[in-house]
Amino acid sequence: MHLTLTDIQKANPELYLGSLHSQTVSFERLSSPQMANSKSLVFLSDLGDIKLAFERGCRAFVLASKLKEHSDLQKDAGYLFTNNVTLALARTSQKFFPDHFNMYLEGIDSTAVIHPSAQIDENVSIGAYVSIGPRVHLKKNVSIGSNTVLESDIVVETDTAIEPLVFIGRRTQIGKACTIKSNTSIGGIGFGFAHDEKGHHYQIPQSGKVILEDRVHIGAGCTIDRATFDETRIGEGTKIDNLSHIAHNTIIGKNGLFAGKFATAGSAVIGDNVVCGGRVTVTDHISICDNVQIGGLSGVSNSITKSGAYAGYPLLPIKLHLRAAASISALPQIRRDITKLFSKLGLSREDS
Amino acid sequence: MHLTLTDIQKANPELYLGSLHSQTVSFERLSSPQMANSKSLVFLSDLGDIKLAFERGCRAFVLASKLKEHSDLQKDAGYLFTNNVTLALARTSQKFFPDHFNMYLEGIDSTAVIHPSAQIDENVSIGAYVSIGPRVHLKKNVSIGSNTVLESDIVVETDTAIEPLVFIGRRTQIGKACTIKSNTSIGGIGFGFAHDEKGHHYQIPQSGKVILEDRVHIGAGCTIDRATFDETRIGEGTKIDNLSHIAHNTIIGKNGLFAGKFATAGSAVIGDNVVCGGRVTVTDHISICDNVQIGGLSGVSNSITKSGAYAGYPLLPIKLHLRAAASISALPQIRRDITKLFSKLGLSREDS
Amino acid sequence: MHLTLTDIQKANPELYLGSLHSQTVSFERLSSPQMANSKSLVFLSDLGDIKLAFERGCRAFVLASKLKEHSDLQKDAGYLFTNNVTLALARTSQKFFPDHFNMYLEGIDSTAVIHPSAQIDENVSIGAYVSIGPRVHLKKNVSIGSNTVLESDIVVETDTAIEPLVFIGRRTQIGKACTIKSNTSIGGIGFGFAHDEKGHHYQIPQSGKVILEDRVHIGAGCTIDRATFDETRIGEGTKIDNLSHIAHNTIIGKNGLFAGKFATAGSAVIGDNVVCGGRVTVTDHISICDNVQIGGLSGVSNSITKSGAYAGYPLLPIKLHLRAAASISALPQIRRDITKLFSKLGLSREDS
Repeated sequence: MHLTLTDIQKANPELYLGSLHSQTVSFERLSSPQMANSKSLVFLSDLGDIKLAFERGCRAFVLASKLKEHSDLQKDAGYLFTNNVTLALARTSQKFFPDHFNMYLEGIDSTAVIHPSAQIDENVSIGAYVSIGPRVHLKKNVSIGSNTVLESDIVVETDTAIEPLVFIGRRTQIGKACTIKSNTSIGGIGFGFAHDEKGHHYQIPQSGKVILEDRVHIGAGCTIDRATFDETRIGEGTKIDNLSHIAHNTIIGKNGLFAGKFATAGSAVIGDNVVCGGRVTVTDHISICDNVQIGGLSGVSNSITKSGAYAGYPLLPIKLHLRAAASISALPQIRRDITKLFSKLGLSREDS
Repeated sequence: MHLTLTDIQKANPELYLGSLHSQTVSFERLSSPQMANSKSLVFLSDLGDIKLAFERGCRAFVLASKLKEHSDLQKDAGYLFTNNVTLALARTSQKFFPDHFNMYLEGIDSTAVIHPSAQIDENVSIGAYVSIGPRVHLKKNVSIGSNTVLESDIVVETDTAIEPLVFIGRRTQIGKACTIKSNTSIGGIGFGFAHDEKGHHYQIPQSGKVILEDRVHIGAGCTIDRATFDETRIGEGTKIDNLSHIAHNTIIGKNGLFAGKFATAGSAVIGDNVVCGGRVTVTDHISICDNVQIGGLSGVSNSITKSGAYAGYPLLPIKLHLRAAASISALPQIRRDITKLFSKLGLSREDS
Repeated sequence: MHLTLTDIQKANPELYLGSLHSQTVSFERLSSPQMANSKSLVFLSDLGDIKLAFERGCRAFVLASKLKEHSDLQKDAGYLFTNNVTLALARTSQKFFPDHFNMYLEGIDSTAVIHPSAQIDENVSIGAYVSIGPRVHLKKNVSIGSNTVLESDIVVETDTAIEPLVFIGRRTQIGKACTIKSNTSIGGIGFGFAHDEKGHHYQIPQSGKVILEDRVHIGAGCTIDRATFDETRIGEGTKIDNLSHIAHNTIIGKNGLFAGKFATAGSAVIGDNVVCGGRVTVTDHISICDNVQIGGLSGVSNSITKSGAYAGYPLLPIKLHLRAAASISALPQIRRDITKLFSKLGLSREDS
């Protein structure tokens, strides 16, 4: 496929603010500056690597609009400008260079075991060695990767892709245009036990379900447990990275972004537009309001009622956290200082 | 199914301490107060949500016995009382509303690949695309979910349920009435390497095994590695939540409860009745005595020889941990205070 | 199989420094001292458990050479000596008692779904219910466990073993003699999103790949994402333990050793010979130089430019970390001390 910057511009006219120099430069693929060549289109938010791209022969660029007048731009190349380089990259690559999982799926593999009560709508793809249980409904354009297992009473809305080796438990509801990566388990029984006087534990059956709203992304190796009675819910547009654990009865709002190894304990309630760095843990039965950002490795053990940025364990407003964390290394010196002060004042530490 | 409180009471007479008001109220399902209706039975340890349940038309309740005389109890409803509401819920739901995984399993699916030397006892269910290797013995009432793989020389005792997409490695022994959730790996080679003078690493073959005693629960996405020589063992009645990692040669005692993302390093020895919050890490070759509770996100890097509650990293007795953690945010102020004290005393910090 | 110490010595003559007493003692298996008997060979770096092994009837030992003159060595037993006991164990067990996964694999199972464009070289083993997609090339002696899925355009070099229930995504390149444990996902799309002005997230397609160099070990339940454009790479001889997450565009050097639950965020660059304890987290876009050791539970949020040992979060040189961590429990006392000092000097805390 040979493309020009004009093709790119036409596909997303609202994104591209103008162009510069030769618009007839053509390209065949998207590249990083490090691996670019004369057939590449490169997206850059700053000019740090543009010289390398020039040296490698690249002549087609999408750049941040602030760079439009920059003197480093060579005249024999073509440029498009945008206020949101990564969004332009996402839209352009999705249109011209899609690379989502499809496991060379065409129709329904003859080895798929599909319960007679399941309903499979048009243009659904099902890979090899898939099991589809009773009363599962797969809607238009859904694709199911090889060896994936859907238990029973499950609805998967249109355009959703489920990769191989996924387990979807009973009653799960999955919205439109979701992505569920490989080796993930959604809708299994929650970790809820009653205890008798001897300390023995008894599973509380989990008769609720998991609901993923539209455009949810669930990474690989995740676990999302169904609720004790009602629902575990992931809001519209929320993206959750690999190896995350969403415990039973957790409610997560819309458009959240949760980096790798996120974890919630049971019954946490998380608002809209919450962004978490890697390996954040949220304790059970707490709530987090909308528009909160939480730094990596943090532990949230009390409810957050005010929007803003937080980090640490215990969790603090991020500026205070950074100052406190920077003070950790001073602790040995602090102890020596206090000993010195006690000595200077003739106090013994035993007094304290 | 229409049930009355009398049916519930008869099924577990030792649990229920008495009843109040109309025992003829009937119901069809268990609910949370939030989703209850006139056909629901609701279990409550306190009265926080009972008004909501009344408003929604719910008229059947199991309540903590301390609530028996409470003035909020409406007269046109039926009540049972118990000293252990969650245990009553677990027992009642298991008897009348079971919801365990069964993948509409009936008998042995014709696609299961079963080695001729494997032994399959009566009433075993095996899903589609399962592999059962040589000398595997599945005892009465065992169920194996679709696409699960059992390597070789494995014994699974009666009434155990293994969900789909599980890998069980060679020589693993699984007790009675265990539950193993989806996408979990048990009995793989441990992470043990020898190193030569060049820093190259050589796998030490792991010729031991994993033993799960009776009534063990292993969550989804877990990994439990077999021992170098002897055994990795999970004690009777112990429950381990999703995405936990039990390293080779770890020994865990009876009736433990380990919340999500628990991890041990090699050769840890953990006693009976140990309860851990989420994301607890236990270092290699340490031991933890019986009857220990460890707060979430803690790191246990020294042996614990005294029963009690601990938290933090480094691990501290929980009260000291809470005081120390609360002081973290004061660190910047502490440093300013010390600077002030030095100034007041005419000392320079360089002196210190 | 009956072996003598002479057999062991001949197999790895460079490892064994000499022998003592009866070399005609024979044995059939490797054991721990705790489970040894008269048919066992036991490897010991120190003599802590040798009495137990003697009592159990064991008469064949490989010992650290420093123990050669020790008075505890009984005369009716046979001994070999070595400067590297664990390496001797690894080499000896690999030669005489191999125990790697092989899922009783012989040839290509008739149920494997293999795309016509795939290339399968000689002596490849493929288990039941495997899917091999277009343009996958499996070289000599490769083994693929049951229910594993290889998407497309994948190369697996000679002697590599992939366990059951693994997903390998498009374009992944796997070197020689690698081990990939069960329920692991390699080569899926990375967690990269663009955001519009409304806070909606759009997947940036990930057109790069994952490269595992030779002799890489990947544990069970891991996730390794492919790069946005170029590559995610794991260097030769590097070993990564269970439930680890390697984010897109991460580059890891040679001969690294990463204990369980390791995690990187995107585009981290890690040098050669890096050793990490369990549950270490590396932030995005930072670099770690060669020959670094990082303690368990640490968070690396700034680049490391000097070889050495580090720990903590924030990360500190390990000695400073240990002193600082030991001071955490003193924080409540520090605050009381400062209050006392203020009082003694007649200062009010409000002044500060």
